[in-house]
Amino acid sequence: MCDVCVTNAVKERMLSRRSFFAGAAGLAAAGAAFQAPAALAQGHQSVEDLTHELHEGFPTFFGEQQFFFDQKFNYAEHKFNLAEFRVNEHTGTHVDAPLHFSADGMSVAEIPVGNLVVPLCIVDIAARAEDDADAQVTPDDLQAWIAQHGEIPPNACVAMHSGWGRHVATDRYRNKGEDDMGHYPGFHVEAAQMLLETQAGSIGVDTLSLDHGMSPDFATHYAWLPSGRFGIECLANLDKLPATGATLVIGAPKHRGGTGGPARIIALI
Amino acid sequence: MCDVCVTNAVKERMLSRRSFFAGAAGLAAAGAAFQAPAALAQGHQSVEDLTHELHEGFPTFFGEQQFFFDQKFNYAEHKFNLAEFRVNEHTGTHVDAPLHFSADGMSVAEIPVGNLVVPLCIVDIAARAEDDADAQVTPDDLQAWIAQHGEIPPNACVAMHSGWGRHVATDRYRNKGEDDMGHYPGFHVEAAQMLLETQAGSIGVDTLSLDHGMSPDFATHYAWLPSGRFGIECLANLDKLPATGATLVIGAPKHRGGTGGPARIIALI
Ligand SMILES: [Zn+2]
Ligand SMILES: [Zn+2]
Repeated sequence: MCDVCVTNAVKERMLSRRSFFAGAAGLAAAGAAFQAPAALAQGHQSVEDLTHELHEGFPTFFGEQQFFFDQKFNYAEHKFNLAEFRVNEHTGTHVDAPLHFSADGMSVAEIPVGNLVVPLCIVDIAARAEDDADAQVTPDDLQAWIAQHGEIPPNACVAMHSGWGRHVATDRYRNKGEDDMGHYPGFHVEAAQMLLETQAGSIGVDTLSLDHGMSPDFATHYAWLPSGRFGIECLANLDKLPATGATLVIGAPKHRGGTGGPARIIALI
Repeated sequence: MCDVCVTNAVKERMLSRRSFFAGAAGLAAAGAAFQAPAALAQGHQSVEDLTHELHEGFPTFFGEQQFFFDQKFNYAEHKFNLAEFRVNEHTGTHVDAPLHFSADGMSVAEIPVGNLVVPLCIVDIAARAEDDADAQVTPDDLQAWIAQHGEIPPNACVAMHSGWGRHVATDRYRNKGEDDMGHYPGFHVEAAQMLLETQAGSIGVDTLSLDHGMSPDFATHYAWLPSGRFGIECLANLDKLPATGATLVIGAPKHRGGTGGPARIIALI
């Protein structure tokens, strides 16, 4: 940033704070009569990107490369840039559609768009996962969350924050052990079963799988997805969000018959 | 001001407005004493999907297939479904990043997330396009929009509604003439140049290209994208939205070095 721009940026930030307080003061004076539908239509203070950058070295469940980038035209030669890419649907920050683990569940293109703009509930097991890479979200964790924050709202995404997002650039993300299994946190199948009794519409994880890495049987996938609900894997930046109050916009891909796919996940706070 | 600084300044201005309104919403909620704070936090009445379903027959600029779906595992045999797909970045409802038409502009992964949640301004030229498939959004159209709805808000996406979205399943979408050119509406280069003088952050079209189909030189692409702004092509359902007031969430893909890519575009009303 040039000096002038730095100055301007600082100025903007100050104005921003002033606007907030001025607005607050004004409203306090106006009392409960505040009605501003246009303003509420925007109604958000900040935006957080829950999406990791996807690239050819992005870690994968099986450990093999799943994203391939192929530059077809380049500016020097053709005066424009254009690429193709090939990708396994379950790569990077991505959605698991019900069809992924069911014979004829909803494809990713069939998830109603209304189910892609939902309340976000974050269950924080980062402290436990720090000591135990095989930690899981349990019914007790969910009970504690509900005791503190209230019922899971309709259609909510219940996301596990295990702290794993910060390992995305290292081997610790997949954390393959001498037993040849991945070691990272996930949802215990009993937690998934408990959430089936709520109005939650999706579960999300900041790791490679809804099931913890050492799961032998994808029990959580099989409990959750055939119910018509969906999942989100490899979420980023969950540490930057409140346990409740954010709205998640799930920019799922919309290709016909897809079992999921790389998605842009954005939180509005 | 350099381009980056302009972008930052615009972003700061947006945050400023957002802070103000969020503050307002927060206070309103506090005043209303627990009356549906979750609803206010969301602050939207409805959601509209501006994304066409992507499939192997989706129409393309050059007329050739650009999306390839490859089922790798199927439920009957493997007890889960999983596919790979290969896609030209500029296929289906998708983003054109600045890098698409510049030597070293922002890749799709580098567009700041704050620029992906923006006000939507719809310029309706559907009546004219009904009579003239080569119709373009002109500076006069923009002047008329501004006269009726006010200045283009910071970072806004200015989208052309030409009525072309309803042709997506027929040859009329690409509308190739005996002259071997496509015939569908787009932004006139002078309209793009005029928008460069505003705070608009992106332009969108419900057709295959920011330029109208018979453009010989991609003049609008070359005027718009190198400025650091981006584009959206093949938008759906613009007829279902108001000319102003909706918030667009642009679920752009986030692959490293991407010149664009299939995106989930969601409007919050
Ligand atoms: Zn998956
Ligand atoms: Zn394009």
